[in-house]
Amino acid sequence: MSLWGGRFSEPSNEDLRALNDSIDFDHVLYAEDIEGSIVYARALADAGVIEQAEAATIIAGLRQVMQEFDDDRFEIQAGDEDIHTAVERRLTEIVGDVGGKLHTGRSRNDQVATDFRLWSIRAADNLAGEIRLLQTALVNMAEAHIETLMPGYTHLQPAQPISAAHWLLSFFWMLERDQDRLRSARARMAECPLGAGALAGNPFAIDRQQLAADLGFDHPSANSLDAVSDRDFVADLLYCISLCAIHLSRLAEDILLYSNPVFGFVALDDRYSTGSSLMPQKRNADPMELMRGKAGRVIGNLTGFLTTLKGLPSGYNKDLQEDKEALFDSLETMYRLLPVLTATISSLRINREAMAAALSSDLLATDLADYLVRKGLPFRQAHHTIGAIVRLADERGLDLPQLELALLQSVSSDFTEDVAQVFDFRQSVAQRRAFGGTAPAAIRQQIEQAREILA
Amino acid sequence: MSLWGGRFSEPSNEDLRALNDSIDFDHVLYAEDIEGSIVYARALADAGVIEQAEAATIIAGLRQVMQEFDDDRFEIQAGDEDIHTAVERRLTEIVGDVGGKLHTGRSRNDQVATDFRLWSIRAADNLAGEIRLLQTALVNMAEAHIETLMPGYTHLQPAQPISAAHWLLSFFWMLERDQDRLRSARARMAECPLGAGALAGNPFAIDRQQLAADLGFDHPSANSLDAVSDRDFVADLLYCISLCAIHLSRLAEDILLYSNPVFGFVALDDRYSTGSSLMPQKRNADPMELMRGKAGRVIGNLTGFLTTLKGLPSGYNKDLQEDKEALFDSLETMYRLLPVLTATISSLRINREAMAAALSSDLLATDLADYLVRKGLPFRQAHHTIGAIVRLADERGLDLPQLELALLQSVSSDFTEDVAQVFDFRQSVAQRRAFGGTAPAAIRQQIEQAREILA
Amino acid sequence: MSLWGGRFSEPSNEDLRALNDSIDFDHVLYAEDIEGSIVYARALADAGVIEQAEAATIIAGLRQVMQEFDDDRFEIQAGDEDIHTAVERRLTEIVGDVGGKLHTGRSRNDQVATDFRLWSIRAADNLAGEIRLLQTALVNMAEAHIETLMPGYTHLQPAQPISAAHWLLSFFWMLERDQDRLRSARARMAECPLGAGALAGNPFAIDRQQLAADLGFDHPSANSLDAVSDRDFVADLLYCISLCAIHLSRLAEDILLYSNPVFGFVALDDRYSTGSSLMPQKRNADPMELMRGKAGRVIGNLTGFLTTLKGLPSGYNKDLQEDKEALFDSLETMYRLLPVLTATISSLRINREAMAAALSSDLLATDLADYLVRKGLPFRQAHHTIGAIVRLADERGLDLPQLELALLQSVSSDFTEDVAQVFDFRQSVAQRRAFGGTAPAAIRQQIEQAREILA
Amino acid sequence: MSLWGGRFSEPSNEDLRALNDSIDFDHVLYAEDIEGSIVYARALADAGVIEQAEAATIIAGLRQVMQEFDDDRFEIQAGDEDIHTAVERRLTEIVGDVGGKLHTGRSRNDQVATDFRLWSIRAADNLAGEIRLLQTALVNMAEAHIETLMPGYTHLQPAQPISAAHWLLSFFWMLERDQDRLRSARARMAECPLGAGALAGNPFAIDRQQLAADLGFDHPSANSLDAVSDRDFVADLLYCISLCAIHLSRLAEDILLYSNPVFGFVALDDRYSTGSSLMPQKRNADPMELMRGKAGRVIGNLTGFLTTLKGLPSGYNKDLQEDKEALFDSLETMYRLLPVLTATISSLRINREAMAAALSSDLLATDLADYLVRKGLPFRQAHHTIGAIVRLADERGLDLPQLELALLQSVSSDFTEDVAQVFDFRQSVAQRRAFGGTAPAAIRQQIEQAREILA
Repeated sequence: MSLWGGRFSEPSNEDLRALNDSIDFDHVLYAEDIEGSIVYARALADAGVIEQAEAATIIAGLRQVMQEFDDDRFEIQAGDEDIHTAVERRLTEIVGDVGGKLHTGRSRNDQVATDFRLWSIRAADNLAGEIRLLQTALVNMAEAHIETLMPGYTHLQPAQPISAAHWLLSFFWMLERDQDRLRSARARMAECPLGAGALAGNPFAIDRQQLAADLGFDHPSANSLDAVSDRDFVADLLYCISLCAIHLSRLAEDILLYSNPVFGFVALDDRYSTGSSLMPQKRNADPMELMRGKAGRVIGNLTGFLTTLKGLPSGYNKDLQEDKEALFDSLETMYRLLPVLTATISSLRINREAMAAALSSDLLATDLADYLVRKGLPFRQAHHTIGAIVRLADERGLDLPQLELALLQSVSSDFTEDVAQVFDFRQSVAQRRAFGGTAPAAIRQQIEQAREILA
Repeated sequence: MSLWGGRFSEPSNEDLRALNDSIDFDHVLYAEDIEGSIVYARALADAGVIEQAEAATIIAGLRQVMQEFDDDRFEIQAGDEDIHTAVERRLTEIVGDVGGKLHTGRSRNDQVATDFRLWSIRAADNLAGEIRLLQTALVNMAEAHIETLMPGYTHLQPAQPISAAHWLLSFFWMLERDQDRLRSARARMAECPLGAGALAGNPFAIDRQQLAADLGFDHPSANSLDAVSDRDFVADLLYCISLCAIHLSRLAEDILLYSNPVFGFVALDDRYSTGSSLMPQKRNADPMELMRGKAGRVIGNLTGFLTTLKGLPSGYNKDLQEDKEALFDSLETMYRLLPVLTATISSLRINREAMAAALSSDLLATDLADYLVRKGLPFRQAHHTIGAIVRLADERGLDLPQLELALLQSVSSDFTEDVAQVFDFRQSVAQRRAFGGTAPAAIRQQIEQAREILA
Repeated sequence: MSLWGGRFSEPSNEDLRALNDSIDFDHVLYAEDIEGSIVYARALADAGVIEQAEAATIIAGLRQVMQEFDDDRFEIQAGDEDIHTAVERRLTEIVGDVGGKLHTGRSRNDQVATDFRLWSIRAADNLAGEIRLLQTALVNMAEAHIETLMPGYTHLQPAQPISAAHWLLSFFWMLERDQDRLRSARARMAECPLGAGALAGNPFAIDRQQLAADLGFDHPSANSLDAVSDRDFVADLLYCISLCAIHLSRLAEDILLYSNPVFGFVALDDRYSTGSSLMPQKRNADPMELMRGKAGRVIGNLTGFLTTLKGLPSGYNKDLQEDKEALFDSLETMYRLLPVLTATISSLRINREAMAAALSSDLLATDLADYLVRKGLPFRQAHHTIGAIVRLADERGLDLPQLELALLQSVSSDFTEDVAQVFDFRQSVAQRRAFGGTAPAAIRQQIEQAREILA
Repeated sequence: MSLWGGRFSEPSNEDLRALNDSIDFDHVLYAEDIEGSIVYARALADAGVIEQAEAATIIAGLRQVMQEFDDDRFEIQAGDEDIHTAVERRLTEIVGDVGGKLHTGRSRNDQVATDFRLWSIRAADNLAGEIRLLQTALVNMAEAHIETLMPGYTHLQPAQPISAAHWLLSFFWMLERDQDRLRSARARMAECPLGAGALAGNPFAIDRQQLAADLGFDHPSANSLDAVSDRDFVADLLYCISLCAIHLSRLAEDILLYSNPVFGFVALDDRYSTGSSLMPQKRNADPMELMRGKAGRVIGNLTGFLTTLKGLPSGYNKDLQEDKEALFDSLETMYRLLPVLTATISSLRINREAMAAALSSDLLATDLADYLVRKGLPFRQAHHTIGAIVRLADERGLDLPQLELALLQSVSSDFTEDVAQVFDFRQSVAQRRAFGGTAPAAIRQQIEQAREILA
């Protein structure tokens, strides 16, 4: 059974059906589709379009269809081109011709927009939950490493000492922005298209406020033409996912680097490592590479969908059917990545010794310049002075603390014996206690803030 | 003068400078850069790092530099690799060595992040203002066409009659979502990185809450490592712009179609049309094609930047310098597109007659099915019945109202004389008065809602 | 069974397996995987690494595995993380421990690169074949419409009369460029990575020239490190597909426009049209919208994969596993789109009358200017003169041929009685007989050229 | 002066001009535009459309315009909306009304397509030349490091020893594929649109074969409608550039990693390094980060342009004007990146000692398995055995060569005294002498092959 065809003299071609039908993927919307129909049947009765008894029959039938889906007993049949057709077909088998009254004044255009918004709201909530778990793992791990020092990098070159907690927490805040983006996308999503009809609105004085409320939306959409052709909410989710995946890719990149033996800062648990078919010694961080690689995939889904939207004329166009597989794929990708990353972080072995061993004295060059600043030198001059000293040390193959005071003084008379005190990584870190800094005090404050957000 | 170089034995290569230097494009940040420096000088003095008198000297010098930029008298010099270097160089020329104290505890990493956030906040506000003007033009034009009927399309095929106001307003709501996206992006943007240093934080107990407040941010960023490497706010803006550009492209596509003579629904003013170098009769809607085409460009800027961000390790990496030209280009594109589209809409000639002439009776097929529904037929059956009647009319080369009652009755006995009343486009439209529908009553409500938003 | 694990103390986590394993999608490579193994077993024997008898046993086993796949009897088991593992596992079940000799000196890195290249070569050939069918359909349809005139458009505004054949053939040439792109991509693909090992090459003096030849490649890849990490061939195919899909989208856009009743130039066969669940009169060109929409999807696959490749370090990285699903999806998309478009073109009803009716006299404005040129006026002047005449006609609501000679002469004295002969669409078309033009003579030449290519 | 306007009653709006005009960027096409016009003037005379003397006058005038551009004396004026308008305006100033004859039968549609193809062919050649220089630098550097050993990585984990030459040469072959892609793109580009007119062809029996030949094209384009709306060649170049930039990004990523002090494999020359405004010790590989980051930018240009092309209707549409800035930007990016990378490679200091120091015994685990294979064990078993031994060594905190023979024998009785000989990195490398492998012999062969290509 098709929902149309009266005006056609020939049935659809097989290849056309294979291209056109969406039941293969849109069947996952069955719950939202049926919920929407139940609410709509009630609204039709309230508007006097059908009898209350008819509505009751239809609703009972729909509940039975829902049950069949829930129990995985629903059988998709040849003509079921999409979930809407499948449900109406089965409903009519169960309740008879009265099932044909359900679609009065409704179009698949407003129906699918409603289904997919409902589904997307739930998906956004699920995703937010998964991200929360990763944020929690990061804060937990950070809490254990407030005093663990490591080199901080800029341009992938050693920059200044930081605490491992500081590094881990930096990802907490990236993810918190993802949460905020999801929240604001969700708010825009909560607009009910049901009752918009094909494009022009509903001719049966249906109560759209009620429809929206019954389905848990904030309000009905304001313009029926826009309501059926708007897929901004899908783009919004695809974008939120892309940026979140980018954040995961950055954390993964760090872990990939830090788990290389020349760094040796972290080691992945055996359960989250993989080996090689040829090289027996291998312990690879495959999942981290997939974090990084799959960021490309979800960016592709976003780009592809934006490209699909560009230049479409008003009203529903079949191009919009491309909304589902892109979002399903991006979400599925995140559902696979996030738990593995959360577990990887939770089971990560942080090697304090390797981190400490990597702290080289040049990480304190800025502190050395600050030392001169405290002696009264303008920073710019101090910077150049220390630059020259670093070069000197380099040329002589010495570490900065190995340079003799006399030599330092030959470059700048501001150096005195107390310069030796600068060469203390913990002190360098402890000084950076301004809000957001890497000092243990500031980190504790940061963790407190994070814990409040998580609560 | 370079801000570094003490440790280098050879100057930078020319090609390297040409690749690396950003002054060519980042000079537009001068105001934000100087504002940030003024506030930072004050904070250094408050923290006791420099004397209040030194701060005053520096601030006066910075104000002079600002004035030189404002007056277009500032001269960029060979070594000025970026706006920060240029400003510090000039400052030092003006105030002497004390200028070298300004950068104490500050890095270009937190500095540029601060500058660019400030600049982006202002850009977001400007963009919102331009979109507001287009929204206003749409509502104004809609108000004049509440009673103007036209065919509504789905799948680019005639679907149901709607009012021209309904069509125009559908774009108002798309743009209103853009406004919401901008608002939420702006809120995430209002986080002050200043005082984050290179990555590890500020060692001089600077008051970051004060810095944030003085610059008009909501609060300081929570993690200094994240603060210097976060460019989510740029991606957010690029995304907001992309979706807005897609909305413009959809409106443009409609106008392109409707201004083709076979439609003839709208005509662009001569001032917004262009001609051909070869074909003397041509009146092209070039700007509408650019609306459509440039949506691709800004999507490209978004994609490119997301690609750049993917897989970056922690901390500032020079890759992030790619943030500026992408955003500058996307914004500039919008600043060119929006005023032209606003003016195009304001001066659009809507041809009521052509729209009316395009209303064909098959646009009422749904109303005809609804007629049978009101007689008690389930909608699905009514739909098939009318489908068959449409086919019949098609085969006989007749319009629906030309079919004789007897013929209709031969298909369904539910047809009676009153069927003739269905063939009334205004009545079809008037019936769709449920919230968000195309009926004049619903449109007036929609306009009222829109006016409240604009107010 | 896993191909690794000796050095691990704990088994992989379930979520990690779900993320990491590729058997769900890479099982389609079974034939190529087994062919590669057969050839490799032979090469191992030839190099004296295994006995010829061992090779024979292994090859017989592999043939049995192939048969099981061909017959759809192969059972994937829990530990089969990818097609390579599955095949080796089953082989060893069949032939015993000697199966473990197959992987000597080989890595999954060179193995999968070989499999996927082989598979991609075949895919490129299949795709080329499908495109050929569409090209043939276009030429066939064009041949029937050499004399059918229609308005040609630029900027979607009427420009000059052309023949329908000219319009149809324009797509032939786009597709021919796609063919050329595929050919050149295929040539670059035909490079055999087998024998590259994990990255460093093969330590058993294997004959890589022979391996390449046996598998039908042009030559072995030149650098083993590059060989295992190169996925340019996937990007190449994704790009070829993207541009081809763009061409389909452009043809689809034209058909969508031309099948709108205000044009009415073409009608899709009922078998390739669809209807509406609400509006009984609807005949939508859904498949054409999917042609257009899915261009976005495949562009997304390309973009996503390029993003994945960007910034990867040397050697095989797991990110590369993202190559398969992207390409599978893009190819599958084309395999669905192309046959439907070919059938749509083959069964397209071209409405000569509607096309003729749409020929308006302003399409001849250029011919009118050329008329003045032939009288000696510089073209630029003639263009301005005719421009003014078009405006005049417009203001008076007249068609160009309706303007009286006296009026024309008042604008330019070059007009004489023979101007009336300009108003002949066929003559306008016939004049454009320079190579590549729309004149029947030039079109016949074009068709001949196309036929030669198809032959 | 505008090339149109006769039929317009009002001049273009200022904002429209700012949006629409392309002279700001398309002026770089002046040489190609004028060359095309010279050839076209000659063709008009040959076809008898203008007098030979007129052609001579026009050509002389065009040469003067060219000279003015070459000398940077050409003054762009207010009405010059594009380079075609500017040149025709100036020509007419110089030669008078006869200049207005040049555009006879020509449209800006075929003109700009011709100009831009010519320009793109030259750009492709320039780009190929720049890539050649980088290839040469790689081969030169490789030649000096055939015997320099380093760890090869897969999954960014130590895999097997390779030579530094092998690593460097791997990029040679990536770039050679870029060359091949450029060659095949260039061949498709060499098709002359001139004479296609606006879309329908040329009505003056112009000799298009001659036009093509005179401009150095291979042949005229086959279909005039396709000729004016085809921008595949732009997409082709944008794609070639994207993949090339990805290759640069991969080399850059390696250099970034290897120049981090924990690796210390390479050091960039001071001239190609940069410092920090805050941290005096810093030596950053900024240009390498830009290689990586700008890959995103050029991928964005490709994506954006493909998006622009998608769904365009037949014939020239103004959207196509977006072709230029995208390509200009991508090319300019490459012109900046390539010389810096070439110089960076040429001046790279490769630290043999650091590379040697990083060779750890587990890189020989595969060789150890091969040792057992040579003793008759099936590889899969050997792999598991060595895996267990690696774990054993790990647990005991020992290197593989430190494990006592007795212990090895307790795991597998196949171990004998000669196992000690396995622990030789040079021998491991030397064994991989099959074609394309890392052995010095194979590398010399590879270099020879590369030299032949460069010659």
